[in-house]
Amino acid sequence: MMFDLGLMEESASEYASVVSINLFVVLLCFCIVIGHLLEENRWMNESITALIIGLCTGVVILLTTKGKSSHILVFSEDLFFIYLLPPIIFNAGFQVKKKQFFRNFMTIVLFGAIGTLISFVIISLGAIGFFRKMDIGSLDIGDFLAIGAIFSATDSVCTLQVLNQDETPLLYSLVFGEGVVNDATSIVLFNAIQNLDLGHIDAAVLLKFVANFSYLFISSTFLGALGGLLSAFIIKKLYFGRHSTDREVALMILMAYLSYMLAELLDLSGILTVFFCGIVMSHYTWHNVTESSRVTTKHAFATLSFIAETFLFLYVGMDALDIEKWKFVSDSPGTSIGVSSIILCLVLVGRAAFVFPLSFLSNLTKKSPNEKISFKQQVTIWWAGLMRGAVSMALAYNQFTRSGHTQLRGNAIMITSTITVVLFSTVVFGLMTKPLVRLLLPSTSKHLSSVTSEPSSPKTLSCPLLENGHGSEVEVEAGQSITRPSSLRMLFSKPTHTVHYYWRKFDDAFMRPVFGGRGFVPYVPGSPAEQSIQE
Amino acid sequence: MMFDLGLMEESASEYASVVSINLFVVLLCFCIVIGHLLEENRWMNESITALIIGLCTGVVILLTTKGKSSHILVFSEDLFFIYLLPPIIFNAGFQVKKKQFFRNFMTIVLFGAIGTLISFVIISLGAIGFFRKMDIGSLDIGDFLAIGAIFSATDSVCTLQVLNQDETPLLYSLVFGEGVVNDATSIVLFNAIQNLDLGHIDAAVLLKFVANFSYLFISSTFLGALGGLLSAFIIKKLYFGRHSTDREVALMILMAYLSYMLAELLDLSGILTVFFCGIVMSHYTWHNVTESSRVTTKHAFATLSFIAETFLFLYVGMDALDIEKWKFVSDSPGTSIGVSSIILCLVLVGRAAFVFPLSFLSNLTKKSPNEKISFKQQVTIWWAGLMRGAVSMALAYNQFTRSGHTQLRGNAIMITSTITVVLFSTVVFGLMTKPLVRLLLPSTSKHLSSVTSEPSSPKTLSCPLLENGHGSEVEVEAGQSITRPSSLRMLFSKPTHTVHYYWRKFDDAFMRPVFGGRGFVPYVPGSPAEQSIQE
Repeated sequence: MMFDLGLMEESASEYASVVSINLFVVLLCFCIVIGHLLEENRWMNESITALIIGLCTGVVILLTTKGKSSHILVFSEDLFFIYLLPPIIFNAGFQVKKKQFFRNFMTIVLFGAIGTLISFVIISLGAIGFFRKMDIGSLDIGDFLAIGAIFSATDSVCTLQVLNQDETPLLYSLVFGEGVVNDATSIVLFNAIQNLDLGHIDAAVLLKFVANFSYLFISSTFLGALGGLLSAFIIKKLYFGRHSTDREVALMILMAYLSYMLAELLDLSGILTVFFCGIVMSHYTWHNVTESSRVTTKHAFATLSFIAETFLFLYVGMDALDIEKWKFVSDSPGTSIGVSSIILCLVLVGRAAFVFPLSFLSNLTKKSPNEKISFKQQVTIWWAGLMRGAVSMALAYNQFTRSGHTQLRGNAIMITSTITVVLFSTVVFGLMTKPLVRLLLPSTSKHLSSVTSEPSSPKTLSCPLLENGHGSEVEVEAGQSITRPSSLRMLFSKPTHTVHYYWRKFDDAFMRPVFGGRGFVPYVPGSPAEQSIQE
Repeated sequence: MMFDLGLMEESASEYASVVSINLFVVLLCFCIVIGHLLEENRWMNESITALIIGLCTGVVILLTTKGKSSHILVFSEDLFFIYLLPPIIFNAGFQVKKKQFFRNFMTIVLFGAIGTLISFVIISLGAIGFFRKMDIGSLDIGDFLAIGAIFSATDSVCTLQVLNQDETPLLYSLVFGEGVVNDATSIVLFNAIQNLDLGHIDAAVLLKFVANFSYLFISSTFLGALGGLLSAFIIKKLYFGRHSTDREVALMILMAYLSYMLAELLDLSGILTVFFCGIVMSHYTWHNVTESSRVTTKHAFATLSFIAETFLFLYVGMDALDIEKWKFVSDSPGTSIGVSSIILCLVLVGRAAFVFPLSFLSNLTKKSPNEKISFKQQVTIWWAGLMRGAVSMALAYNQFTRSGHTQLRGNAIMITSTITVVLFSTVVFGLMTKPLVRLLLPSTSKHLSSVTSEPSSPKTLSCPLLENGHGSEVEVEAGQSITRPSSLRMLFSKPTHTVHYYWRKFDDAFMRPVFGGRGFVPYVPGSPAEQSIQE
């Protein structure tokens, strides 16, 4: 109705945008329904479903417009980084099993930071070695380093769907945690390359890079924690629970988004910030709100994240067939296939080159064989992080569409190769991950549950609480206090446990009185409804 | 972080958009906190708080940019009609007390359609009479008719906040229901005027207009109902409840949005469509989903609507000080004040001219004195619908910024007058509504509760169910069945009750077996939690 009112020259583009919104919403509904129907399927997952539906829609649009265009929206970095990524990463932080994550914190940072650097070096060197001999137009040293950064970014979104937090909690926390740190590292690397004076690479430049990375990591984490604590403080002090669930939920959503955008404004890593904001919110804020707010936030954040993920894969699928990009490589399909294959091999090698050595290093620090990462688990970690996704796409678009919209042969080949690698790795590697996990870790749920003490809730029970029950942590605490060694000996034998023990003491003594959290609202397991009546 | 990666020429505008998003999110948080603190205040409501905070921010920006600009986003019809309005109107339909709404359906349509036409005629004639004699540039007959349509659009968003559904259910449903129909009527009117051949207004044109309006009303309602039923059918047939709350919630959100966008695509009234979609979803779909989904959808929709409303008023407040618009009227402030005053008077008279006569007509059809609209209630209805809001703004921008961006004197005066009227009516009339309701209807909650049989729940209890309990309807049904007159006599004496009775028979026999609804999932009053454990 309203779109007729507009200016005459605008009405055509307004009409087009209404059509494309309609199409996207219909496709999203399709993806949800088909994803539900295929849930029992042992190969498929929702990302692949959305990607394939996107590809099919692209083909249909290509045929109906007689080859003019296959996509209805141009891939936009803004759309991706401002609207789609924040809810996905925030929800991951909000729903992550915090104990598991922090217990493996050092391993995660090792994989995410050092691992990504190793992968970056190998892919860059490989690209320089192979592509210089091939006929793929003018690429300079900056482009080769960018290729290294682009293809070091694993796809944490797809990983979330392939691994199951309840069945393989250790692997999930390692691979996903690595993915979050890895995203940040890749983006920092990419940024550093663009500002790098490539003539003078020496120790000072490397040191500056390391300092820059540490600054980014620490200040982003700090900002995220601050945002989460501020929301907990506001909600506890004003005690919104008095009347308004809607206000509490709105405030949580807005504060989380604010932490992300503030990080972007301050040139920090929004991904890290919003991830830690999610963790802090689920630890403090979530326990200060009413029971309805808890159920609502848990499911509303998961739903937003789910819609954003589905949209993302749909979008990448539709964008992949963009005819303009393929025009420039159609005269030499061999080169394009060759480049894509080489990149895929480099990705495989680059990931292997850090997963196995770093796992070995990580195992050295662990005493208990239960906590060590077995070889089969290492293979799964290697495999599950091979997928490349929207971050790679966004970085590639940024690097290779700057000078002349893929008009240059080299740029066009790199864009189409990125699309090929993303599609191939998501679909082929993604399809094979579920069977691979089942093959390598047949007794996963039993074997790995022993590592964690948290209850793996059956999926059919729609539990209205986050699965980080208080009871289980108390249990571990009690178990430790019986055989408690001297603090110093404990710090060497079980460093993360000791840190966790002191953290809980600090948390109970200083943080919870100010910011609320579980200790503040009495928690009656299994009876969320009684509370809602009292409130 | 990512915004550094962009093209150099783009980075400035990207930076500006990040800054403005940050500012808006911070202001939204402020509005929520301050709105909460002022909740007990007898004058303020959240709309006014947001409007005032927006105005203050506008002043601060104006001072810091040294008078260059006061707003950080240009008022955009797209933003308003594509993103902000749908969640507000959908939530209104989703949470409205359906029985109360349908019982007063004829009165609501009478007020919303005929009333808006009367108001339109009076304001248009008044504008022609007064403004022709004043020195306000070149306005043609089309402009005067447009002024009539623009200022006939009441602000249903602000009304929602001023009246309380639990305290004054009859007034709420009348004023709010009228607002929804009125929005649609105003937009149809505005559209019709733009396409009208103003030289030939005769009976045929009027008949065509009436036919057009009826078509729009019926097909929009039908489309909304269809969207709601489709979502109920999909969720019931696939029984998403088996595993996934997130999928159900996502599907409900997407289907609701789809119905709105589809209506826009088909040139229907999206507002009416999404309103009826909300009603149908709360009647069928909401009862087919899991308990967690019910709590989540109820609060998530309310939260989205709340954020959109707050954003809207913030935005209107900030936009009001745009220096460019005021430049052209600063040389003759008298004229501008005169125009605004005349419009305000016309709005007052135009609304009085239909509320009192139509209430009289409506009272003629009611036998029971309980159901009649008393004079005091009529005054409240008249007053509560005086506020003008974002729909008026959007229509005014559309009409008066087309030719040369308010460069013309007449256009500039009309835009600034619209802003003045919107600000004045929202702030002054809005501030006075709460005390007025308390003055005119001191025993409201008792007096009017007797009209409805639905329980008015205390606001402090965070009831996780929509307040349209099954029990009360059964009660009424039972009461009717005892003294049941012959159907024909009943149809004359209590037409809406009879329609309701047959509707329920039809609903139970044909609709519920297919689309689910309350009859499908057994409902245990007051024990939502037991269900969630069973599920």
